[in-house]
Amino acid sequence: MEGLAALSLDALSSVAYGPEAIVLALVAAGSGALAATLPVTLAIVLLLVALVVSYSQVIAVHPDGGGAYAVAKKDLGVTPSLLAAASLVVDYVLTVAVSLAAGADALASAFPALAHDKLVVTLAGLALLTAVNLRGVTESARVLMLPTVLFIMAIAGVIVLGLLRPHPAAVVGTEQPLHVHEALGVVLVLKAFSSGCSALTGVEAIANAVPTFRTPRVRRAQRTELMLGALLGLMLIGLAVLIHRDHVAPRGEVTILAQLTAGAYGDGWAYYATNLIVTLILLLAANTSFGGLPVLMSLLARDHRLPHLFGLRAERPVYRYGVVALALLAAVLLIAVDADTHRLIPLFAIGVFIGFTLSQVGLVRHWATDQPDGWLPRALINGTGALLTTLAGVILLTTKFLEGAWVVVIAVPLLMLLFARIQRYYTEVGKELELGRVPAAPDRRAASLVIVPLGEVSKLARHAISAALALGDEVVAVAVQADPDRTRALRDAWERWNPGVRLDVIDSPHRSLVQPIVDYVQRAAQDGRQIAVLIPEVEPRHRRYEILQNQRGLLLATVLRARTDVVVCMLPYRLSM
Amino acid sequence: MEGLAALSLDALSSVAYGPEAIVLALVAAGSGALAATLPVTLAIVLLLVALVVSYSQVIAVHPDGGGAYAVAKKDLGVTPSLLAAASLVVDYVLTVAVSLAAGADALASAFPALAHDKLVVTLAGLALLTAVNLRGVTESARVLMLPTVLFIMAIAGVIVLGLLRPHPAAVVGTEQPLHVHEALGVVLVLKAFSSGCSALTGVEAIANAVPTFRTPRVRRAQRTELMLGALLGLMLIGLAVLIHRDHVAPRGEVTILAQLTAGAYGDGWAYYATNLIVTLILLLAANTSFGGLPVLMSLLARDHRLPHLFGLRAERPVYRYGVVALALLAAVLLIAVDADTHRLIPLFAIGVFIGFTLSQVGLVRHWATDQPDGWLPRALINGTGALLTTLAGVILLTTKFLEGAWVVVIAVPLLMLLFARIQRYYTEVGKELELGRVPAAPDRRAASLVIVPLGEVSKLARHAISAALALGDEVVAVAVQADPDRTRALRDAWERWNPGVRLDVIDSPHRSLVQPIVDYVQRAAQDGRQIAVLIPEVEPRHRRYEILQNQRGLLLATVLRARTDVVVCMLPYRLSM
Repeated sequence: MEGLAALSLDALSSVAYGPEAIVLALVAAGSGALAATLPVTLAIVLLLVALVVSYSQVIAVHPDGGGAYAVAKKDLGVTPSLLAAASLVVDYVLTVAVSLAAGADALASAFPALAHDKLVVTLAGLALLTAVNLRGVTESARVLMLPTVLFIMAIAGVIVLGLLRPHPAAVVGTEQPLHVHEALGVVLVLKAFSSGCSALTGVEAIANAVPTFRTPRVRRAQRTELMLGALLGLMLIGLAVLIHRDHVAPRGEVTILAQLTAGAYGDGWAYYATNLIVTLILLLAANTSFGGLPVLMSLLARDHRLPHLFGLRAERPVYRYGVVALALLAAVLLIAVDADTHRLIPLFAIGVFIGFTLSQVGLVRHWATDQPDGWLPRALINGTGALLTTLAGVILLTTKFLEGAWVVVIAVPLLMLLFARIQRYYTEVGKELELGRVPAAPDRRAASLVIVPLGEVSKLARHAISAALALGDEVVAVAVQADPDRTRALRDAWERWNPGVRLDVIDSPHRSLVQPIVDYVQRAAQDGRQIAVLIPEVEPRHRRYEILQNQRGLLLATVLRARTDVVVCMLPYRLSM
Repeated sequence: MEGLAALSLDALSSVAYGPEAIVLALVAAGSGALAATLPVTLAIVLLLVALVVSYSQVIAVHPDGGGAYAVAKKDLGVTPSLLAAASLVVDYVLTVAVSLAAGADALASAFPALAHDKLVVTLAGLALLTAVNLRGVTESARVLMLPTVLFIMAIAGVIVLGLLRPHPAAVVGTEQPLHVHEALGVVLVLKAFSSGCSALTGVEAIANAVPTFRTPRVRRAQRTELMLGALLGLMLIGLAVLIHRDHVAPRGEVTILAQLTAGAYGDGWAYYATNLIVTLILLLAANTSFGGLPVLMSLLARDHRLPHLFGLRAERPVYRYGVVALALLAAVLLIAVDADTHRLIPLFAIGVFIGFTLSQVGLVRHWATDQPDGWLPRALINGTGALLTTLAGVILLTTKFLEGAWVVVIAVPLLMLLFARIQRYYTEVGKELELGRVPAAPDRRAASLVIVPLGEVSKLARHAISAALALGDEVVAVAVQADPDRTRALRDAWERWNPGVRLDVIDSPHRSLVQPIVDYVQRAAQDGRQIAVLIPEVEPRHRRYEILQNQRGLLLATVLRARTDVVVCMLPYRLSM
């Protein structure tokens, strides 16, 4: 049950927009066409059954999880795995956007005053999620339990109570005139089907996360997958029956699910509570992407398809890059479609169906290669699944291309190209670094010279010269001075101290510090010794003093690293202030 | 003449707004009050004479330049020097803002269509100046010669031709009803006087820059100062006579100077050319601040009153900080007053008069201390100058306090406080570092351990181990691995290479890189050896690849520097890509 809560939010929450997407597609042919809602839903549930059975197989074959990307990489080769990765990235972004938009719809159903500020509501929700994830939450399945159970109970209540009542308990929202501009034909039904398939997004999540289950992992994951399938299927059918019986039609400011809720519970507190629960579940569903994308990025980074940095997803700054990138992309999408759920759905489902198809095809390939006992029926099941999801994907793409799917058709290949380009770069770097070959023995003969840039004689100078003496065969201090008086004072102080290290003073009439030192270092580097420049840095205890210290050393270090090949060392000296 | 061009733009260009400020103050008492323009101008020119004589003395006594800040520091002590520095900073910002606003007025006089977009015009001008200064121009006096000569000729032409004509050649702008809301009394005359004093801003510039003159410096600088005084005085009187004779009154969209220009040249091409020259000169006057502020900041930094970083004004990034800061402050001011020149003038003159007064008082102190031959008359001249400028400053402050001068009254002490606070911090740091005392001899006994974090065996590893061997008494390589297979592969590769250096592999199941290494380093640092962590970095040749490399090393270096006291070394390895 905890597994269900943690991994099924995305799938279960899609009942908030899936059935509505069907109704909105059909209503183009007038209210009579709404009768097709039930058969279309049944077709979708049939596809769901195929998917659940297929994913149970995926779980058994890939107990190490990883989802479509891992499966495609293992069984299908480079291009399909890049395709899987790109479509997954697109879907993580879209899950955030769609869930937030649908959440704003649910909230606006309870509080119609918000109906005109949906974009603001979604962006506020996004800001909340971003802030929470930047702080870093360890998402606990237990926390998700209560809302998930409440959500399932609320929707079950809507269906059961709704079916028991002869008439809806209450009607909310204002009726709208229908603009009939299409006949109910094959194309429209296919459109409704493909829109409704958005209700299936998320059923792959369990198969991606098998390693997070307790042993026996495979058994538990399969059981959870079946439970999710059963729940989602029952909900979809139940809601479709209610829509069919009560002739529910779109009412602008109130969602279909909210209308069914009012029909079952009336328009009292239970109506508000249900809408709020739906909003919360959608918000949590959006949050799953913030957990999922960094994992995918880390897998891609380890395969050299994203900057290696992202492989370190346990490092807070790295994780934050991912969170901010996801939030920005989702914000751009939400602003582009003005937080309209139904303009996002055509974009949404395509990536998911690419993933579905690749997983199934990968399994067929797996069965055909390994040929274990009884492989043929299994391959047939997965092959059927692949056929169905390909079909659904093609339908989606063709019926929704102009409605926004083209964005995905452009974004996915671009991402694939990016991944491939990065991988090629790393391969070339690996060649240049002779990765995998035994390098020559390290050079043991080089003597070393440590150069210490100093401004004055002080405890800091002592600290730096001591460290330099420990590291170098020879140590030399170097100062840059514009003022002859100060040069003399520095030389005098140096002689009084007499640290046994030479001090070179470079004359710099133009008050430049960096270039004279770079020149000095480059001259010193000509004799083949290993040169290190040791820059002592006063580290104030309070951050607000940082602009007062360090800056010159950092500037020098940056330029030395960019323009010379010497080792640049920073030595901290901590102040009590 | 070149000295005049380079250093007098600020002063000369103020004829574009000084006389106008007088007229605008007087007109509050009706058009009859405008007759007071001439006597008020004569009083201002009298003050100018006192200032020019005084500054000739300043030049002789302080041939090393430095202006009010240097004089106050040398002769008057800490608080006056902080006051001088703060008012100079404020004036650099205001010079930019006032010159740009007056430039927009001049431009709008020629092209009335711009009259409603003055703010946009000033911000565009500011953007241009910022861009030019960010790129870094070596301001050549020769380039400034031509516009300066053209400007002087144009204004001289306005005065001479204007006086020769019995009637104005042309009248531009539309007459406006005058709102008389004050009687012509002492207060109004004082207000007009204090506003008109804005014409004197900039006469101190030559004394600040004596070292830039060719020898004999003092003589040349004094001659230039006298020339500037004569030119400015003649221009102010000439323009005032014209205003008096032609009964020139403010006409909203056209400046007083533009009206006089039309009166002298007519409204043909010469009118446009003159307004454009005035605009250009004002833009160049604004530019002088971009040259001056970094010098002042560098002086303050060397006196520990600004972050030491700013002492390096020859370094491009440091210089850029100053340019951007100045541009932002000027932009804020311009936006706050909607680019209205006359709302800036009350803020403008006060800082200048603080500087004037401090310079004179400093000289009096100097004469009284040194008592050279004939010191008494000199001290009397400077004392009179100080008295006059104090008087003017007090008048300015009292008559203009509510009109905006309060901003300066708040900003100057805040800046003084900031400088003092920074200085105190550096003093305390100096104590902690025992600056000026002879430190103990450096520690020569410490052995060193160089830790090299590595991910794989490659040419990069060889490069890093070689450098580490040159620097450390002992070298150890350390790798962080999550995956046992990869750990084994790494160990195998290491043994095949056999570089004679130990490899420690740290197990990190959470895919964290930084914390395990920090822990490892802290354990190693316990035995008193000098620890250095040498981080090899692959440096791509193209900037666009930088996100693909380096990032892990930089992250590690940042955390190590923040949390440990070890030396952190970066070793670049340059790629051919």
